[in-house]
Amino acid sequence: MIRPVPDATALSQSVIKGETTAAVIAETVLERIQALEPDIRAFVSFDARKVRTDAALHNSRGLLAGVPVGVKDVFDSADHPTQFNSPIYAGHQPARDAHVVTLLRQAGALIMGKTHTTEFAYMHTGPTRNPHDPDRTPGSSSAGSAAGMAADFFAVALGTQTAGSLLKPASYCGLFAFKPSFGLVSLEGVKPLAPSFDTVGWYGRSVRDLHLVARVLIPGFAVPEVEPRPLQLGFYRTARWDQVDPEVANALEQAVDHLLSAGHQVNDVQLPDEFAGVFDDHLLINDCEGARSLAKEFQEHRALLSPSTLAMFDRAAATTWEQESAAKARLAALAPRLNERCQPYDAMLGPCCGMVAPVGLESTGPSDFIKFWGAFGWPQVNIPLVRAEGSMPIGLQMIGRFRNDGSLLRVAERVASDLLTDRGQ
Amino acid sequence: MIRPVPDATALSQSVIKGETTAAVIAETVLERIQALEPDIRAFVSFDARKVRTDAALHNSRGLLAGVPVGVKDVFDSADHPTQFNSPIYAGHQPARDAHVVTLLRQAGALIMGKTHTTEFAYMHTGPTRNPHDPDRTPGSSSAGSAAGMAADFFAVALGTQTAGSLLKPASYCGLFAFKPSFGLVSLEGVKPLAPSFDTVGWYGRSVRDLHLVARVLIPGFAVPEVEPRPLQLGFYRTARWDQVDPEVANALEQAVDHLLSAGHQVNDVQLPDEFAGVFDDHLLINDCEGARSLAKEFQEHRALLSPSTLAMFDRAAATTWEQESAAKARLAALAPRLNERCQPYDAMLGPCCGMVAPVGLESTGPSDFIKFWGAFGWPQVNIPLVRAEGSMPIGLQMIGRFRNDGSLLRVAERVASDLLTDRGQ
Repeated sequence: MIRPVPDATALSQSVIKGETTAAVIAETVLERIQALEPDIRAFVSFDARKVRTDAALHNSRGLLAGVPVGVKDVFDSADHPTQFNSPIYAGHQPARDAHVVTLLRQAGALIMGKTHTTEFAYMHTGPTRNPHDPDRTPGSSSAGSAAGMAADFFAVALGTQTAGSLLKPASYCGLFAFKPSFGLVSLEGVKPLAPSFDTVGWYGRSVRDLHLVARVLIPGFAVPEVEPRPLQLGFYRTARWDQVDPEVANALEQAVDHLLSAGHQVNDVQLPDEFAGVFDDHLLINDCEGARSLAKEFQEHRALLSPSTLAMFDRAAATTWEQESAAKARLAALAPRLNERCQPYDAMLGPCCGMVAPVGLESTGPSDFIKFWGAFGWPQVNIPLVRAEGSMPIGLQMIGRFRNDGSLLRVAERVASDLLTDRGQ
Repeated sequence: MIRPVPDATALSQSVIKGETTAAVIAETVLERIQALEPDIRAFVSFDARKVRTDAALHNSRGLLAGVPVGVKDVFDSADHPTQFNSPIYAGHQPARDAHVVTLLRQAGALIMGKTHTTEFAYMHTGPTRNPHDPDRTPGSSSAGSAAGMAADFFAVALGTQTAGSLLKPASYCGLFAFKPSFGLVSLEGVKPLAPSFDTVGWYGRSVRDLHLVARVLIPGFAVPEVEPRPLQLGFYRTARWDQVDPEVANALEQAVDHLLSAGHQVNDVQLPDEFAGVFDDHLLINDCEGARSLAKEFQEHRALLSPSTLAMFDRAAATTWEQESAAKARLAALAPRLNERCQPYDAMLGPCCGMVAPVGLESTGPSDFIKFWGAFGWPQVNIPLVRAEGSMPIGLQMIGRFRNDGSLLRVAERVASDLLTDRGQ
C-alpha cells in the first residue's frame, strides 16, 4: 500500500515548519477514505465537513499539528455520537470530549471520526474488515482504529485495552501499538469495562510516533536515556505456548535470531507454575467487573445486549465474591515476583497473538499472551514483524516493568530499528 | 434537629408497602429545603419541579423507593448542570447520568439536586455551611452532600474520596459514611482527580442505610454472616496522633471504653516506622495524578483555576517521574505488611479527624487519618459519636481490610449499636 502521508512525527514537523498545512493533509486523507472506506468500514461516524473545519482551525504549533487521528467509539466526543456498538446508545451524543480527545485537539490533531468497536469493547464484533485481507477480522475490540491505521486513514489512532483489545488488532493488522502502564492515562469520558485492567492505548506508524503521542496524553512523561550497549532481553513463552501456530513461532524465532546477530542477548525466562493461573484469574475478574460496569444497561435493556455479553453476566453470576477477591489477591501476590524475575532485562519479549488474523468477522481469537502482562498493568508494545509478500502480519510483543514506560519505548525503538536493518529494509 | 423522615431503609419499606408515597416524602423534604437552604447552601443546582416529576414517575418497588438523595457535583447528571465548582464548566450540561446516578434512579431514589463541592473535588471551597454551626466548615470536598444530610435535605447522599473528601465532612457533620474498597464502584461519569485513590462513597443515617446503598451501587455485593461473639478490634493511632486535639482524643477513648465494657476487645496496634511515610507519599501521588487529570483545564484555562489548584500543579512540576514511581512502589510494598498486621482483627479503629470542624469556610483541616487507609484502598466507615448538647460532632473511623467491605459493615453495625446502647440511647 502506498502511504499517503508520512508518520506523525514527520507530519507535525512539516506543519510546524510551514512546509505543508493541515488542510492539505486532510484532503489527501479524505480522498483515501472515500476510496477505501466502503470495503474497510473503519468508521462508525465520519463527517468530511467537520474534518475540513478542524483543519482550518487546528493548533498549528502543537506536538500533533495536522496529524489525522482516529478515535475508537468508546471515547466520548462532543462532535460525533458515541455509541459503543450498542443499540442502547444509538445516536447518543455526549456533551464533552473524553479527556484524551481534548488533549489531542489541544496538540493540534485532526479528529477524523469515530471508529468501530465491539459492543462496549467486549466481544460482539462490528463490520470492520482487515485491510490486508477483507475476509479476515482486524481483531478486536479496537477494530476500526486498527483497520483505519492499516488503510492509512490516519497516522495515529486511539484504542483501549482490557484483555487484548489494543495489541491483538495491532498484531493482526501489522501496526505499532503502545499500551502504557495501568493508571497513567486519564479514563475520563471512556466507558469502563473492567476497571482493574482498562487502559487507554494508541497505534502509530513508528515507535517514535508512539512516544510522541505519549508526550501529549501523559503530561510530564519522562523518557530516560538508554546506554548504547547491547540489550539484555528476556523471552517468555507463558504456559500457553502450545497455542502458538508454527508460522507465528517461526517468525518470532527469526526475529530473535536477528536480534542475537545484531549483538543483543535474548534469554529464555521461566516462571513458576503459579503463573499459569493468570489467564483464568484475568478472565474471572474481567467477568465480574464487566458485569458491574454494565449493570445499568443489563437492568434496563437486557434484550438489547449481545449473547456474548449476556454470557459474561451468566459467568459473573456464577462467581462468588470470595472467588473474585481470591483472584485479585493472587495477582497482587504474583506481581512483585514477576517484577523480580524480569528485573535483569531491559525489556521482555513474547508472542503477541498465537495466530495471524483468522478468517471471518465474528470471532477474533484469543488474547492470552497479551492479557498475561496486562493482568499486572505492565506497559506493552507491539512491533510488526517484516513479512513476506502476501502473508498476514505477525506481531512481536515487548513488555516493560510497571511504570518503566519510557525505557520500554527506548528499547522498542532499538529493537524495531535492528529488526528492519538486519533484514535490509 | 427534628428528622422529617426516617432512615432510607425504613423509608423505602414504607413506600414499597404503600404506607406512604414518594410524592409525600418529596413535599416534606422540599419544605425543609425551602426553610433551611438559604443558610446552609448545600445545593449548587436544585429544581423542585424536577423532584416532583421524579416522585411521580419513580420505581416504587426498588430498594431505594422514594428515598431522597443528594448528588455531589462531580457526578455527571442529565437533568442538572455539572460544574465541579469551576467557572470553566459554568452551565455545563452532560448528556447522560453517571453510572451510579442511573443505578440510584433505577432503584427508585429521588435525585434532589446537585450538591456543592470544592473545585474539582480538590481544595478550593464553596459557600456551604455546617448545619451544626454556620460559622464552621462542613468539611470538604463533599461539602454539600454532608451539610444537606445534616440538615435532613435527603436520607442518602453521594460523595467521592481521594484523600479525605467523604469521611472528613462525615466527621465534621456527624454522619454515617461508607467509602468502599477502591475499584468496587464504577467511576463512569465521575470527574477524576487522582485515579489511584478516587473512590465513590456515600452518607446514610444508619449503618444499615450504608449497606442498603451498597446493594444498589455494587451489584452482587455480598455480606458475610458474622458470629455474635465479642469483636476483636485494633486501634491504630498513626504517626500523626500528636495532631489529635484533646477533645477528640477524649471522645475516642470514651468510645473505646464503652466498647470494652460491652465485652469487645480493643488492642493498640503499632506499625513499623516506614508507615510514617504514607502521608507524604499519598500527597505526592495525589499532586502528580491530579496535575495529569486536570491537564486539559490547565492548558486552556489556567487563569480560571484557584490558587490551591495551581499550587498542586507547581508541586507536581517539581516532582520527578522517579519520585512518583518510588512513592507508588513504597505503598505497594507496604500493602501486604499492613494486611498481615491487621489480619487478626475484625476491623480497625482510629480517629477520623484530629479536630472538630474548624471555624471559617475557606480551610477545612487535614485529612491525614483518613488518607492513611485510603492510600491502600481499604474500605472505611465513619461512626458519629454521641455528643453533649451544643458540642460539635466527632467521628470514629472504622477500617476493613481490602475487599472485606461486607464484614466491615457488619462489624460497624454492632459497634454503632453498642456505642448507642451503652450510653442509654
